[in-house]
Amino acid sequence: MQLQSQPDNSFDSIIATGLFDGADEAVTQSLAAGTSQQFIKKGTVLFIQGDEAKYVYIIHNGWIKLFNETLDGDEAIVDILTTGDYFGDSAMFGNQCYTFSAEVAEDVTATLIPIQQFRNIIEEHPVIAINMLSNMSRRRKQQDMELEHRTLQNAPQRIGCFMLRLCPEGVTKNILIHLPYDKTLVAARLGMQPETFSRALARLKKEAHIEVQGATVHISDLNELTTYSCSACSSSYPCE
Amino acid sequence: MQLQSQPDNSFDSIIATGLFDGADEAVTQSLAAGTSQQFIKKGTVLFIQGDEAKYVYIIHNGWIKLFNETLDGDEAIVDILTTGDYFGDSAMFGNQCYTFSAEVAEDVTATLIPIQQFRNIIEEHPVIAINMLSNMSRRRKQQDMELEHRTLQNAPQRIGCFMLRLCPEGVTKNILIHLPYDKTLVAARLGMQPETFSRALARLKKEAHIEVQGATVHISDLNELTTYSCSACSSSYPCE
Repeated sequence: MQLQSQPDNSFDSIIATGLFDGADEAVTQSLAAGTSQQFIKKGTVLFIQGDEAKYVYIIHNGWIKLFNETLDGDEAIVDILTTGDYFGDSAMFGNQCYTFSAEVAEDVTATLIPIQQFRNIIEEHPVIAINMLSNMSRRRKQQDMELEHRTLQNAPQRIGCFMLRLCPEGVTKNILIHLPYDKTLVAARLGMQPETFSRALARLKKEAHIEVQGATVHISDLNELTTYSCSACSSSYPCE
Repeated sequence: MQLQSQPDNSFDSIIATGLFDGADEAVTQSLAAGTSQQFIKKGTVLFIQGDEAKYVYIIHNGWIKLFNETLDGDEAIVDILTTGDYFGDSAMFGNQCYTFSAEVAEDVTATLIPIQQFRNIIEEHPVIAINMLSNMSRRRKQQDMELEHRTLQNAPQRIGCFMLRLCPEGVTKNILIHLPYDKTLVAARLGMQPETFSRALARLKKEAHIEVQGATVHISDLNELTTYSCSACSSSYPCE
């Protein structure tokens, strides 16, 4: 691992998670003792599925890819996380090992909390457990939607849905967005082979009238894209 | 709803969830005040996505289908639950509404806990929040696997995987299992159209040498089935 300590903004990312909302100051003071903030380069593998869990990671900025590998050598994306997300907490339950591998998809700054310290804090401050339950419920709902999309949306609709989630709120015409990471990773995140993704993107451009140049996407009419993608979904735009 | 009160076994199903492990007796006494146990017939719709959440349901026996419907009228299965599972708890967070619909897939006996009472108990007994986090982590891991299977396993492998999870532990030859609910629902649970399911089942029977008659499945050699299904999975048999 290539790790470099960063001295500033130690608690901004921790606060942003909402994890410690409602907890008293003793928690942040207790956290100050054991945590570290790290800058980690793209491509760094933080841990492998089955490794003993040492830290809960809170992302300050950048992108982290969580994934698993099969016996056949294929890779399945579990999740792709960014600012304000945290991971590694689930290892506290079960056999204390990470249940997935983690790699830095785009340079990351993260706060690392030793896992035993994190567990002690939760047990002493029930409000944090409630915050975690709330966060986990929200993420489960997202996973439910992801599974639903795999079943009911076709590939172009799923790419359209991915783009819609990047759109700023309240704007409906002439929207410019940027894909946050490599197209190959976007394809993997959506459970598509690269060639399926290319064909689906071409179809989406034609049928929903959007333009794509490199990582930049131009959506002239948001309603056209929502009509195209959201008809095959049980939620309506904007999603919760 | 067709509901009939059942007088017996009021707390067996509650205990079986593991939710209240480590909590003191005051909890079970406090639960006794507001809960009821109900027998509910197959086909009953308990609630619809978006309904105000009234109860957390703990399943004593039978099967419950959680699902969503899209604007196009398609149905996506969120989960299919049975003995010892509970649902409706996630509505405590967010906007206090159910985020999916629930229907009885096979006759059910369930304990209903008023949602505000459930929330009060959690806030008073932090150990229950920790138990819930543990349970939710396990279910998230299962969802991760489900998403992985949709990406990397083909349809016959996914049916094989479903059957493997019904096999008794420690037996490797001449195993007889019974599909727990309708084949149509098994297909939907696996995100397949009925015709895809039929073709995939035919291929599985031929390639992994299993026999299927109605809801009964005969697996002559478990190793053959695990080799067939688990090679395209990041976990190995038996799964956690």
